[in-house]
Amino acid sequence: MVNLLTANVYKMLRIVKIGGNIVDNEAKLRAFLTDFAAMEGPKILIHGGGRVATAIAAALGIETRMVEGRRVTDARTLEVVTMVYNGVNKQIVSILQGLGCDAVGLCGADGKLIVSHRRPPVMVGGDGGKTGGTLVDYGLVGDPVSVNNALVNKLINSGLTLVVAPITLDERAGETASATYTGGVGCSACTADTGGLLNTNADTVASALATSLAASLANEDKSVELVYCFEKQGVMMDVDNPDSVIPLIDRAKFADLRTAGIVDRGMIPKLENAFRALESGVAKVVICAAENLSRTGYGGTTIKI
Amino acid sequence: MVNLLTANVYKMLRIVKIGGNIVDNEAKLRAFLTDFAAMEGPKILIHGGGRVATAIAAALGIETRMVEGRRVTDARTLEVVTMVYNGVNKQIVSILQGLGCDAVGLCGADGKLIVSHRRPPVMVGGDGGKTGGTLVDYGLVGDPVSVNNALVNKLINSGLTLVVAPITLDERAGETASATYTGGVGCSACTADTGGLLNTNADTVASALATSLAASLANEDKSVELVYCFEKQGVMMDVDNPDSVIPLIDRAKFADLRTAGIVDRGMIPKLENAFRALESGVAKVVICAAENLSRTGYGGTTIKI
Repeated sequence: MVNLLTANVYKMLRIVKIGGNIVDNEAKLRAFLTDFAAMEGPKILIHGGGRVATAIAAALGIETRMVEGRRVTDARTLEVVTMVYNGVNKQIVSILQGLGCDAVGLCGADGKLIVSHRRPPVMVGGDGGKTGGTLVDYGLVGDPVSVNNALVNKLINSGLTLVVAPITLDERAGETASATYTGGVGCSACTADTGGLLNTNADTVASALATSLAASLANEDKSVELVYCFEKQGVMMDVDNPDSVIPLIDRAKFADLRTAGIVDRGMIPKLENAFRALESGVAKVVICAAENLSRTGYGGTTIKI
Repeated sequence: MVNLLTANVYKMLRIVKIGGNIVDNEAKLRAFLTDFAAMEGPKILIHGGGRVATAIAAALGIETRMVEGRRVTDARTLEVVTMVYNGVNKQIVSILQGLGCDAVGLCGADGKLIVSHRRPPVMVGGDGGKTGGTLVDYGLVGDPVSVNNALVNKLINSGLTLVVAPITLDERAGETASATYTGGVGCSACTADTGGLLNTNADTVASALATSLAASLANEDKSVELVYCFEKQGVMMDVDNPDSVIPLIDRAKFADLRTAGIVDRGMIPKLENAFRALESGVAKVVICAAENLSRTGYGGTTIKI
């Protein structure tokens, strides 16, 4: 039940994810945050911060291992990404505060905002992981299993804007004898006793928040919109032609694009996340350029089912 | 007015500060957090994290400059301490979550929890800074000017435990033309445009929170207790004799100890902070060993007025 005395009356919650390439560029980040701060209504920002983490890991003598574009996270790498992502988080919060947007920065461990399941070793490569390929242990990486909707709603209804760093809480946090994974390339030598934090893909964090909150707000006649902002203009027919943005993608169009090889490897999980979010009750998913956040409809590509 | 439907009914709020030497030691930190998690009633933890920041700054090629035991904070150093303190913050939060304590980690920028005033250059050395000495610009360092009591009370009344990193929000955050300081040793070449974060002494953060919350809770018949935990047993007559703890220090005793040269330089600001907190309505201030947090009365030294 909504407490009408304290809850902000709103119709739509916007969840915006900003890509690492924008976070790495101070001028672009500030321009984006200026638009974000000016957006009306309740909102949540999820950010990455990948390249800074890689640079700092290198300076500390920690080798960064990527398999199929994703970071293998051992215990020391987790320490670095926890520091870097949460440091970036506070810089974003302070910029937003300076812009008059009352922001609070959290990661998934705070108030059990996002609890995750440690990813077991997976087959990568070969026939899309189905036959052949290599068993890869990505290490201290988690996939979200629950969101603390009550905490998010409480903060939003207090007029706060949430800024979320993509570090989550292991559902097994506090267990003394954590499972250890063996076999496969990657992080098989990791110890699992890390205090319970797990590195999590920022796109996945955004769609997990959107999906969970859409369900919790549905009976209050409130909708959730999910906006992925990055350095490109949207999903494009020709990656070298910024005018080739595909304005609308549904399931059939997605299948066509995939068959034609137009949608690249990096975009496929983004689109699959988008369809899952829509099927779970998210009203709208958009993939657009960071500089278009203030445009009506955001430009870019709208995903629908 | 207290909302009796939602507010936890409690009599005392405990604010505990844990020193950097404990934070640096994983086994000691975990033992301390186990005791902290087991404490009943609402509580706030403030932590430092100094030595890790120095090590990481060194690895990144950033020279650490200390003047009279305090860190000179230029823009790059602020980036490092922001990362390190907030990374430590999330590790503490996840350990507490694993111990069944529903913790939320914040810094001063989050929801304007702690807003601070950038410290102007100060005279250091000579006759206690009164005559002679050197003008030192500590750089991007802030002294608290306000605490968001409403936010703290809201979170506490939701059953959450706050974990606070000693980074605060510049009261001038968002101003485009920040003042630049010139002259003196230290950070005269710093730019002031940092997005508005300031490095702040963790002891000072703890006493600012205690003082502000004591005032806000006084008319609800709730009291605030401030506990400084560190690696020693308390304030000691003889620093090499752990059995020489002074159990009680009042203003007269403090003056005697100071005259006799028994209280060392590091302890003087801690005790002065303690007296200021007591004079502003904090019920009790204790300085004790981290391992004694679960002891009745904490052992150590109680400060009273």
